[in-house]
Amino acid sequence: MAVSIMRTPVVAMVGGGQLARMTHQAAIALGQSLRVLAAADDDPAAQVTPDVVIGAHTDLEDLRRVAAGADVLTFDHEHVPTELLDKLVAEGVNVAPPPQALVHAQDKLVMRRRLEELGAPVPRYVGIESAAGLEDLDALARRVQGPMVVKAVRGGYDGRGVRMAPDLAHAREIARGYLAEGIPVLLEERVELRRELSALVARSPLGQGAAWPVVETAQRDGICVQVTAPAPALPDEVAAAAQQLALRLAAELGVVGVLAVELFETSESALLVNELAMRPHNSGHWTMDGARTSQFEQHLRAVLDYPLGDTAAIVPVTVMANVLGAPRPPAMTLDERLHHLFARMPDARVHLYGKAERPGRKIGHINLLGDDVGQLRERAELAAHWLSHGQWTDGWEPHG
Amino acid sequence: MAVSIMRTPVVAMVGGGQLARMTHQAAIALGQSLRVLAAADDDPAAQVTPDVVIGAHTDLEDLRRVAAGADVLTFDHEHVPTELLDKLVAEGVNVAPPPQALVHAQDKLVMRRRLEELGAPVPRYVGIESAAGLEDLDALARRVQGPMVVKAVRGGYDGRGVRMAPDLAHAREIARGYLAEGIPVLLEERVELRRELSALVARSPLGQGAAWPVVETAQRDGICVQVTAPAPALPDEVAAAAQQLALRLAAELGVVGVLAVELFETSESALLVNELAMRPHNSGHWTMDGARTSQFEQHLRAVLDYPLGDTAAIVPVTVMANVLGAPRPPAMTLDERLHHLFARMPDARVHLYGKAERPGRKIGHINLLGDDVGQLRERAELAAHWLSHGQWTDGWEPHG
Repeated sequence: MAVSIMRTPVVAMVGGGQLARMTHQAAIALGQSLRVLAAADDDPAAQVTPDVVIGAHTDLEDLRRVAAGADVLTFDHEHVPTELLDKLVAEGVNVAPPPQALVHAQDKLVMRRRLEELGAPVPRYVGIESAAGLEDLDALARRVQGPMVVKAVRGGYDGRGVRMAPDLAHAREIARGYLAEGIPVLLEERVELRRELSALVARSPLGQGAAWPVVETAQRDGICVQVTAPAPALPDEVAAAAQQLALRLAAELGVVGVLAVELFETSESALLVNELAMRPHNSGHWTMDGARTSQFEQHLRAVLDYPLGDTAAIVPVTVMANVLGAPRPPAMTLDERLHHLFARMPDARVHLYGKAERPGRKIGHINLLGDDVGQLRERAELAAHWLSHGQWTDGWEPHG
Repeated sequence: MAVSIMRTPVVAMVGGGQLARMTHQAAIALGQSLRVLAAADDDPAAQVTPDVVIGAHTDLEDLRRVAAGADVLTFDHEHVPTELLDKLVAEGVNVAPPPQALVHAQDKLVMRRRLEELGAPVPRYVGIESAAGLEDLDALARRVQGPMVVKAVRGGYDGRGVRMAPDLAHAREIARGYLAEGIPVLLEERVELRRELSALVARSPLGQGAAWPVVETAQRDGICVQVTAPAPALPDEVAAAAQQLALRLAAELGVVGVLAVELFETSESALLVNELAMRPHNSGHWTMDGARTSQFEQHLRAVLDYPLGDTAAIVPVTVMANVLGAPRPPAMTLDERLHHLFARMPDARVHLYGKAERPGRKIGHINLLGDDVGQLRERAELAAHWLSHGQWTDGWEPHG
């Protein structure tokens, strides 16, 4: 009996977090193998895929081990030093996104300067790399007046490494603190926001690009808590401009894979680029249930240079809510809480990450599909709060 | 820092085929662990999940090993002898569906007799367990006249074990052949079909039931090739009757998990039950992309006694086409064919099983979502033929 040779693409992913876990689900459908470099064997992805390398993303040997024989090396976070990636590239490893693109998701100052060169709209800012540069702050203060934001240029996520300063004196003090630790800082005006948006796109090595509908993101304490897709009441021309901007940045920076462009919509309806991420992103979790092609499948398609998938929404509105670990663990287990959630909301699409619950930690997310934004947001908030805290906020009680 | 205890439900599944593979995808989202009993470490599910027991589904020790410590033992096929399952139940294993239900998916004669008792509509038939019983054939022949279908009562799937007999003499000959091998047979009228339908439902131990929209299935050489959800132009009252029938059978037989009721729609619009399956079923693959809750997630929810998920369709029409191994393997690898398919159909939802290509073997399926039945069917057929054969049937050529 004739049996054709199977050639299964192997994708190596650095990081064993929830993004790798969900990428594995997508890889299964495409008949691919995902190999992850995880820090521990109970990392979210390591729990669910058989091909796991335990090691450190800062160790060249570990990176070599996970990349060996794979078609491509990609990432579930942006913390791999580019020096190491440069070495891998020199050794013939196909790294996607390549280090010269990835650095723009690692270093806020490199990113900001490059975006300015490219003519992309960004908040007014100054970059300070040493105490001697602090005098540049005065020039910024003259231009912006009022509160400022001070950001460590590397290593921050979910609001970490970002601090608000009510005035110049405080900004100077915070910056001095970072600089004393050898961490360069980015200081910028605190933008008058209407809201935050995210433009998610993917780009393949062939240069094909595809943009999902632009979404609205809501933060609490610097952590994304809710995403609405598409962003309600966003004028078509603004949405199209955001998509075009994200596609242009993906091309100019040489991104391969998914690129999230986090945007500020100012009170004057202008768009400013806040941050970049070059991997599947929290603002794209809604695509798992609400779009023709999920960001995880698309990332795999992009890094392996397949033609990209349809990015259209399947339903009028999808709302995603993150489930965060509560300050105190609820009496019920997460699994018991899941039973109660399903009893009340049979349509909730739940994605859990297999993580222990710690305060503020992202342990899962919920997608709700429908057509009424207000109702979906309320229900998503209710569901996420329940899974986090084991308490309904609208007067229900868990029956049992 | 407070860390709550994680309690991850463990589901043991007998069989490492594509159904277990796709169940694993669903288990990941729910934060559960799927453990599979696979025949070999390259079985479709064994490739993608870390918790694999290699063994035989006919070996009590292997079954004990996979069930040890699991919350429930369930199935990706119905071939586990009920004697073994009875032993496991006696030892305290939670088997879902329980053996006294499962036997109705294993033995066509047991099933047919039970359904008749329950007053469910079935084709006219006679069961023959030994050569001595062959005389019962004459009685059936007087009632039905015309062609008959001869079925081995156990072990058949995808059209195997089912043979057509143009007349009584042929039917007798085929039956004699099976009986000589010790295999009892079911002989039935060849029903004048309008088409075949499938009513897919799930039932939990609590007794909650949920029915997906009734679908139309199309067979070629006894193998399901295409499913249209919902079944086009099916009168609402017939659809509701099919759903109610399936829910009633699930309850009467004590099913836990997914139950597929394969139905004949006769030329007079009557419904007759053809077969039962008690596991995720090919006629439910459309739910992965086209329904609020996929059959794989629902099966997990049912066997673990969670409240069941919303079974509504997300889009007006979903068409599923099976990808079958071609008689001769195409020159291009399956992965290359996938590239070409994605280039032409960015909206195709592809699910591959990681199986070597052999003639007629199910190696994957494609879901297409939209609202035009005719167009979706044509495109699904085109896509599936391409992935099977590496040839477009409408005059395109692979570019490259």
